[in-house]
Amino acid sequence: MVLTNTDDKLEQVAVNTIRFLAVDAVEKAKSGHPGMPSGAADYAYVLWTKYLKFNPAVPDWQDRDRFILSAGHGSMLLYALLHLSGYDMPMEQLMNFRQWESATPGHPERLLSSGIEVTTGPLGQGFGNGVGMAIAGKMLAARFNRPGYDVVDHQVYAIVSDGDLMEGVSHEAASLAGHLGLGNIVYIYDDNHISIEGDTELAYSDDVEERFEGYGWHVQRINGHDRKAADEAIAAARAEDRRPSLIIARTHIGYGAPHKQDTKEAHGEPLGPEEVEAMKRNLGWPLEPAFYVPDEVYALFAERRRLLQERYERWVEMFESYRREYPEGAKLWDDMMARKVPEDITDKLLAVIDAKAEAATRDSGGQVMQEIARHVPSFCGGSADLAPSTKTLLKDYGDIEKDHFSGRNFHFGVREHGMGTICTGLALNGGFIPFGATFLIFSDYMRPTLRLASMQHAQVIYVFTHDSVFLGEDGPTHQPIEHLASIRAIPGVTLIRPADAAETAVAWAVALQNQDGPTAIALTRQKVPRIERQNPESVRDLAKGAYVVSDPEGGTIDVILIATGSEVHLAVGAAAMLKEKGIGARVVSFPSHSLFERQPAEYKDRILPPRVSNRVTIEAASPMSWYRYAGPHGLIIGLERFGASAPYKTIAKELGFTPEAVAERVLRYLEGREAEVGSAER
Amino acid sequence: MVLTNTDDKLEQVAVNTIRFLAVDAVEKAKSGHPGMPSGAADYAYVLWTKYLKFNPAVPDWQDRDRFILSAGHGSMLLYALLHLSGYDMPMEQLMNFRQWESATPGHPERLLSSGIEVTTGPLGQGFGNGVGMAIAGKMLAARFNRPGYDVVDHQVYAIVSDGDLMEGVSHEAASLAGHLGLGNIVYIYDDNHISIEGDTELAYSDDVEERFEGYGWHVQRINGHDRKAADEAIAAARAEDRRPSLIIARTHIGYGAPHKQDTKEAHGEPLGPEEVEAMKRNLGWPLEPAFYVPDEVYALFAERRRLLQERYERWVEMFESYRREYPEGAKLWDDMMARKVPEDITDKLLAVIDAKAEAATRDSGGQVMQEIARHVPSFCGGSADLAPSTKTLLKDYGDIEKDHFSGRNFHFGVREHGMGTICTGLALNGGFIPFGATFLIFSDYMRPTLRLASMQHAQVIYVFTHDSVFLGEDGPTHQPIEHLASIRAIPGVTLIRPADAAETAVAWAVALQNQDGPTAIALTRQKVPRIERQNPESVRDLAKGAYVVSDPEGGTIDVILIATGSEVHLAVGAAAMLKEKGIGARVVSFPSHSLFERQPAEYKDRILPPRVSNRVTIEAASPMSWYRYAGPHGLIIGLERFGASAPYKTIAKELGFTPEAVAERVLRYLEGREAEVGSAER
Repeated sequence: MVLTNTDDKLEQVAVNTIRFLAVDAVEKAKSGHPGMPSGAADYAYVLWTKYLKFNPAVPDWQDRDRFILSAGHGSMLLYALLHLSGYDMPMEQLMNFRQWESATPGHPERLLSSGIEVTTGPLGQGFGNGVGMAIAGKMLAARFNRPGYDVVDHQVYAIVSDGDLMEGVSHEAASLAGHLGLGNIVYIYDDNHISIEGDTELAYSDDVEERFEGYGWHVQRINGHDRKAADEAIAAARAEDRRPSLIIARTHIGYGAPHKQDTKEAHGEPLGPEEVEAMKRNLGWPLEPAFYVPDEVYALFAERRRLLQERYERWVEMFESYRREYPEGAKLWDDMMARKVPEDITDKLLAVIDAKAEAATRDSGGQVMQEIARHVPSFCGGSADLAPSTKTLLKDYGDIEKDHFSGRNFHFGVREHGMGTICTGLALNGGFIPFGATFLIFSDYMRPTLRLASMQHAQVIYVFTHDSVFLGEDGPTHQPIEHLASIRAIPGVTLIRPADAAETAVAWAVALQNQDGPTAIALTRQKVPRIERQNPESVRDLAKGAYVVSDPEGGTIDVILIATGSEVHLAVGAAAMLKEKGIGARVVSFPSHSLFERQPAEYKDRILPPRVSNRVTIEAASPMSWYRYAGPHGLIIGLERFGASAPYKTIAKELGFTPEAVAERVLRYLEGREAEVGSAER
Repeated sequence: MVLTNTDDKLEQVAVNTIRFLAVDAVEKAKSGHPGMPSGAADYAYVLWTKYLKFNPAVPDWQDRDRFILSAGHGSMLLYALLHLSGYDMPMEQLMNFRQWESATPGHPERLLSSGIEVTTGPLGQGFGNGVGMAIAGKMLAARFNRPGYDVVDHQVYAIVSDGDLMEGVSHEAASLAGHLGLGNIVYIYDDNHISIEGDTELAYSDDVEERFEGYGWHVQRINGHDRKAADEAIAAARAEDRRPSLIIARTHIGYGAPHKQDTKEAHGEPLGPEEVEAMKRNLGWPLEPAFYVPDEVYALFAERRRLLQERYERWVEMFESYRREYPEGAKLWDDMMARKVPEDITDKLLAVIDAKAEAATRDSGGQVMQEIARHVPSFCGGSADLAPSTKTLLKDYGDIEKDHFSGRNFHFGVREHGMGTICTGLALNGGFIPFGATFLIFSDYMRPTLRLASMQHAQVIYVFTHDSVFLGEDGPTHQPIEHLASIRAIPGVTLIRPADAAETAVAWAVALQNQDGPTAIALTRQKVPRIERQNPESVRDLAKGAYVVSDPEGGTIDVILIATGSEVHLAVGAAAMLKEKGIGARVVSFPSHSLFERQPAEYKDRILPPRVSNRVTIEAASPMSWYRYAGPHGLIIGLERFGASAPYKTIAKELGFTPEAVAERVLRYLEGREAEVGSAER
């Protein structure tokens, strides 16, 4: 699909339009990155006007190509292309670059209505998100395409930088993309030899071609300013459908700026008025006005848009026909795109859990997930080489493998960070509710992806098992301490730490219903007793973040014991011992801070009555997040040290996490002999 | 250096001794990884008895070879080798594998007295630590070696697994190692084709040889059970002194176990008594006793130890001669090994800061670092491609580059995680106080290394600039919110967020004096005013975590304003406005929670008198860590949302971080119209 009514001179004008929109916007904002857009404009122009499939009038068209600017600092390149291509990205937004509440922030922020697919900036993330989107494309094609009906037939394009390729996450994602043979990936590496500190040779001498061939990619090298070469390379990359493609495009940062081209000064700051003027003269561009777009350039992009509109209409026509011929397929399509979950999912999940007296919540989670898979076609995911430990294999479904994308189970390998970026890509693509599983300790390896999933309101579910020192013998390198608090601190991430099988079922239901952002579920390695609730139905109030497990007979509450996860049964046990001493203890299960904070004050006060100032929180983890609930006169039983390698019952005893030890500390506290405490060793 | 008095049969017995020590220990612990030690025993035996240079009697001998078991789950391999080699690792410790307070935890924990160099387990970390140690070796050699005096002449060996190579951090570290031409690295890749989920082919099809050649490594392939091949490959790797070496050793996990060899069942659980018996029969090993070590095997290792002792004594002799001939070099050696810092470093650093009315603390930090470099020869480091932004270049010193290791400035590239592991390796090696610099937001990319540095009490200094939403236009992808709290939650990490140039100087002095663990210093991008302290000397109390900047005239404290970093001047400004309303406000600068918590109660109560319950904390970040200090009736001014792209003064105004807005909120709070608050949007 090549435009016919343009000539090389007009193309050059169009490319320079992109360059100077970027340069002028950075100049006006007095902040930004002019060099990358100037350098990338040639091949980006070719990609956007000859290959990229989209419809600005229907920006969420499911079969559009995905374009990711992984080198997010070059955001003005994207904004300029969106503006010219006819998206909801008016000139005033370009002029408002990097200003409060503009659609044109310093780094692209997902805004699908304007054509911005992915929030990028932290390097390497977009690279991995694209791999997730490419897998999503393959999975949807495997489910829906029929002879004569390629309803899913699009590519994932990205522009990546040397920084993206230096970041470790690009290794993880690229390795898996090669392994899976993702022929629907076309990435262009903007090889401009300049990073912030100067020439990339300061720190970087990878043979990128050899490295990516080692991953099983198809690799080409071009002069990134040679539009014909770019055209041919993209065509070849698209034709390659068994391997992901990398096009190494040698470019010159700040192309055309007479004194700053090929220097780090062109990277991350305005060129300055003199250099802008010199650059405009050099490239034969009118000095005034700034933000100049020649009419013929608008016309050129409008013609492209017309062709794309026709293409879109053909797809709509095909899909209508598909809907008639394959009504069940169309129904499944609608359900998946809506990420539909049965309304009675909580009941369904509560019905499948074992009634065993003891079970590890990771095992309960595994049971629940089998049931989810049966009812939620969007549900898929996998583990970072820990499925037998995280219990997350969907037993009735196949694996995602090269040439086989109809399954639901991913084998991410020992690649937590890659897993995170891929899950986000799956979620942003549409159609899927992905989960990614590993040990809670390794959430540290993938934190940037939790944050970005939250910023983008992506529905990703993280399954973090082995959620405390009670994982035992593997020792302190594998035992989380600060991780629950650290995840709770990320805005928009819902962390849930269920106490038993029933809470695990409800936690999963909440995660499925939380379409607006990521949910992390923390689960035990060790067995925990089933919690006996005075009102068995109260477990459903997990959705409110905290609820009362039991109140003392007679109703006088001397102290509130607040606990999460595997520590709830300690609170229950301690309450029974306190009862024998004539002390009335309320036990509150508190699986989620963020869910609790969304409740009205009335509910919060009902669970934690302000008049009861004797409060004890029990969580075998950093106490940081508990000061908020323990209150001024509270006792926080937590850990401010690293764990230890030993059988978990030994650890529990040595660190004071038994019902007896908790009861003893509560007694001392009520007698005024102990104020707030956390072991201070490490 | 090859043993002469052994034969192949005896070697086979020794190798099987290692195998069964591991198998028996896992069996006794009912937990652990028997397969990797069994598979790796052949080449590990060759390495430890023919190449590795060490002295069990002087385990911290500076010129010993470093051995890192990056595949830390195979810990029993290491413990067995340490035991046989004569380290302080008695048989009862092997029998106590994975038990409370043993020297043999599930994954190796640094215990130099027993020969354990590095804490490993989280995959990829040891790989990167070794690169740091190799750089340290090159740097020490460049500083100290003289003709005839190769006082530093050792290698860094590691055993790495498929998991290490899948993790992104291995890419970052390997790429930099190749770039720097670290010929003193010899890594053996235990290529056993099995990971937890099953065959590595499930998720992994990298051509490792091609990948590492792309990084500029020297790569060999061997049969890992062919000891002669291992011998030759290690010799060739040692002879290669311009490139790091990777030996791909194809091994069989659980070697010799008749039913479990080459299966995932041999990976992470005991073989079980029947299979252990079958394996012993299969390899011709006595069934009893467990933990059997033939006398001739002890004798073989004793002979090796004797040879190594001679070698050590020759080194000591050489070093004594060196000390006589180069007394200045020896003095520098002693200073560096002690990580010596002048006692008056605080004075020295306070003396060099600008007296400007306004300065970004990143700029003040840069000034201070120049002075540190002059007085502290151990001081070195660099940035993850952000030196011009973090201001961390040591201007009077050269760069670390291939063939040039006499400088002090690292160019880590866009590789935060790799930077973290390398800094830890530099610190653990001895001789250096390394710093690693990036934006605070990117601390997320390197969190596993902060935690492991803390566990190992490694003196690494992290410089995290652009420490709040006030970095401005780069937007929310680059603006930290949860990061201060999240770092504070890691046990043993000292986080300091200084308020102005003087505090920055003292913060650096504290970091240099904190030899027992890592320190993170959070610095601003934007300019901040110099804080006017009623007692100028009080700034030295930054070392106590918090101190009083100013008290109201007359002495009646109506409210305490507590702030950190760039928010301290807001508190000062607000206090002035409150004074006009007749309200007496104490201003407390609170740069470090962990330093404050180390103070006696008397000091804490002096700074935050319990009788004053009107407290306001001000930090443009997650409020989580402030509930502890705000108290029950406090007001927390923080952020529970992501930031925004705009000029920083706009952001400050929109989000309420101006003296006027703070004063207004404090007034409302004192009037009882506002309880604790954090913006709840995101």
